[in-house]
Amino acid sequence: MGGSAQACVPGFKAASVSCGLRKDGGEDLAIFLSQLPAVSSVVFTKNRVRAAPIIWAETRASLRDLQGVLVNSGNANACTGDAGVSAVGEIAREVSRRLSLPEGKILISSTGVIGVPLPRGRIIGKLRNLCAALSSSGFSGAAKAMMTTDRYEKICRQTFRAGGKTITICGVAKGAGMISPGMGTLLAYLFTDCRLPQRKLDSIFRRAVDKTFNRIIVDGDMSTNDTAAVFANGATLARPLKEVELDRFERKMATVMSELALKIVADGEGATRTVKIDVRGAGSRGNAEKVARAVGTSLLVKTAIFGADLNWGRIVAAAGRAGVRIDPRGIVVHIGGVRVFGPGMERVSGGIRKAREKVKKDSYDITLDLGGGKGDYFVITSDLTYDYVRLNSEYTT
Amino acid sequence: MGGSAQACVPGFKAASVSCGLRKDGGEDLAIFLSQLPAVSSVVFTKNRVRAAPIIWAETRASLRDLQGVLVNSGNANACTGDAGVSAVGEIAREVSRRLSLPEGKILISSTGVIGVPLPRGRIIGKLRNLCAALSSSGFSGAAKAMMTTDRYEKICRQTFRAGGKTITICGVAKGAGMISPGMGTLLAYLFTDCRLPQRKLDSIFRRAVDKTFNRIIVDGDMSTNDTAAVFANGATLARPLKEVELDRFERKMATVMSELALKIVADGEGATRTVKIDVRGAGSRGNAEKVARAVGTSLLVKTAIFGADLNWGRIVAAAGRAGVRIDPRGIVVHIGGVRVFGPGMERVSGGIRKAREKVKKDSYDITLDLGGGKGDYFVITSDLTYDYVRLNSEYTT
Repeated sequence: MGGSAQACVPGFKAASVSCGLRKDGGEDLAIFLSQLPAVSSVVFTKNRVRAAPIIWAETRASLRDLQGVLVNSGNANACTGDAGVSAVGEIAREVSRRLSLPEGKILISSTGVIGVPLPRGRIIGKLRNLCAALSSSGFSGAAKAMMTTDRYEKICRQTFRAGGKTITICGVAKGAGMISPGMGTLLAYLFTDCRLPQRKLDSIFRRAVDKTFNRIIVDGDMSTNDTAAVFANGATLARPLKEVELDRFERKMATVMSELALKIVADGEGATRTVKIDVRGAGSRGNAEKVARAVGTSLLVKTAIFGADLNWGRIVAAAGRAGVRIDPRGIVVHIGGVRVFGPGMERVSGGIRKAREKVKKDSYDITLDLGGGKGDYFVITSDLTYDYVRLNSEYTT
Repeated sequence: MGGSAQACVPGFKAASVSCGLRKDGGEDLAIFLSQLPAVSSVVFTKNRVRAAPIIWAETRASLRDLQGVLVNSGNANACTGDAGVSAVGEIAREVSRRLSLPEGKILISSTGVIGVPLPRGRIIGKLRNLCAALSSSGFSGAAKAMMTTDRYEKICRQTFRAGGKTITICGVAKGAGMISPGMGTLLAYLFTDCRLPQRKLDSIFRRAVDKTFNRIIVDGDMSTNDTAAVFANGATLARPLKEVELDRFERKMATVMSELALKIVADGEGATRTVKIDVRGAGSRGNAEKVARAVGTSLLVKTAIFGADLNWGRIVAAAGRAGVRIDPRGIVVHIGGVRVFGPGMERVSGGIRKAREKVKKDSYDITLDLGGGKGDYFVITSDLTYDYVRLNSEYTT
């Protein structure tokens, strides 16, 4: 997975340059562009405090037929008032002019420090070079340019056959939740060279976002800038996908997004382990989600994961405070596939001995069956480490 | 505040012994007892997973006229099944017999490791010595014996005049939230030598708990064992307090509980700073509480407090994801009394410069006015430090 050669999708180009927003002088401005008109679907953060690019996009961009995205790192353009929104408008106009596209066809995203005015001039001044550099091998560089505290760029790719052609789905992403104060954000873009009706794309994409990016937890915070978008341009197969092909498309896209999501958790600030918290029998999906999120965000659970401590008591206690009516006597906990607790509020001594080895692994599952019938949900969480505290307390705005 | 001489309340005695539940061999069994019949009020954890002493107390104890409390540290007797509940019953019978009291007049509390069977024999074997040691100067030792990861015992005391007498309200407490996996818990007991109708005591106590113990956040986790109780025995003033005296009593009791709560946060695991998160103008108290808790539990906010980083962006972003409908343009943030952000999503450069000094203090206020009219709530939170991660990841069950 990943790598510049694999990252290209027919009909798409990408590029990156440095415009001086990052302190380290690295590349910090990226563009991904379809060479053909495309259909698109976009999902923004549910945070009520939204960054300027999102405020702008919701009223000014044409979110169903976007043709590309311009991303800067180093500045989130969030909490920047009216000036921040007007900066987005100006940048959007300039990039459209350079690309000879109608206004509103290029999505603008930002990630970086919150509350610092965006130096719009630096970005606009580099658009000419950026657009001139567009190439089908530019994905890897562009994925790097949108990184903030990420340790590595995140690119995943899947293919499938349709209409006698090989169709590619390629995704790039950065960040994990609101990793850091305005340093972090989840940005993810998917590109494919097939075509499908916008409504179909929209519903497939939203289902996949719900099962992938929405399930990962690093610190429980939600950025003001989170954005996920998909672009489908039909460069390889111009006719719309048929019903059976759509199923294949959905599976492959979910795979790409799931792999990106896992890379993001594994690269969570200071993370050394990733754990799936799988809640079953919660009575309803909503209840299961509450319990999964309570366990997945619990500092006590996350520090126990870090310490490889088989602390099932913290898991049960976190489930108990999730605000869901549960019968404690029905709770059964498995760790790494081994039953350690319940039912009847009893510990399982043999299982506890076995599971002590499971929690030393880099990745394992914690399953909570609440014994209340249907209602499942999972999240994937990382551990809470010294490095998390270091990265987030030593960072100075 | 504190100290053994100050801690005694007329008509109450206390004692402590070691019964081998703590690994360090220190005292781990305490009793607080009124010499006279008393009225009482008790508040238990809202966690759905409740420890055995709480399951027992809710059906078997006489919570309105308790005369004392027996507490052990070193074992939480939580997630211990039916055997755990029967152990509480046996201990309660034995202690009542020793004290020649009807069964159910002594509350039983436990704090310590979750999920390990309670060695009931060790406790019962020491009850004779414990009861023989009861003395009016035993409070400080008893407050120490119920500590787990606490660094110091917590005793506060206030007096007021009623009926020509000096009335004392004394409180002892341990722990902060669910500090640690079964190591921690909030236990708090208040003792007073005046008398008041049980219903009055109940409503005054619940109001005070809501404004004090329920407002503190260390890690956002809630123990399976949290218990707060008050005992009023009339040893100094036998007649019920009059209306005007009740007001004085309520103020003084709230002061004692508020001081205990502050001691608990300041002693939160690894904590170096305590910060009040004061939310106003949220439209309703419920909304204000959601926002205050979202900000007060945010890992990003808590690590920024540790790092003395004036990171108002993290505060605004946490408020935005609290699940409350807010208009970001109405948000105004003050830190240490200085306006740093808003309204109109604008940063306040002069204020930001001044506030950089405020966040270096051990204790300060963060005020968020959401501009939505009435609806206030506050919480008091601590910072998230390396020591928190160390204490909670190195601890092994």
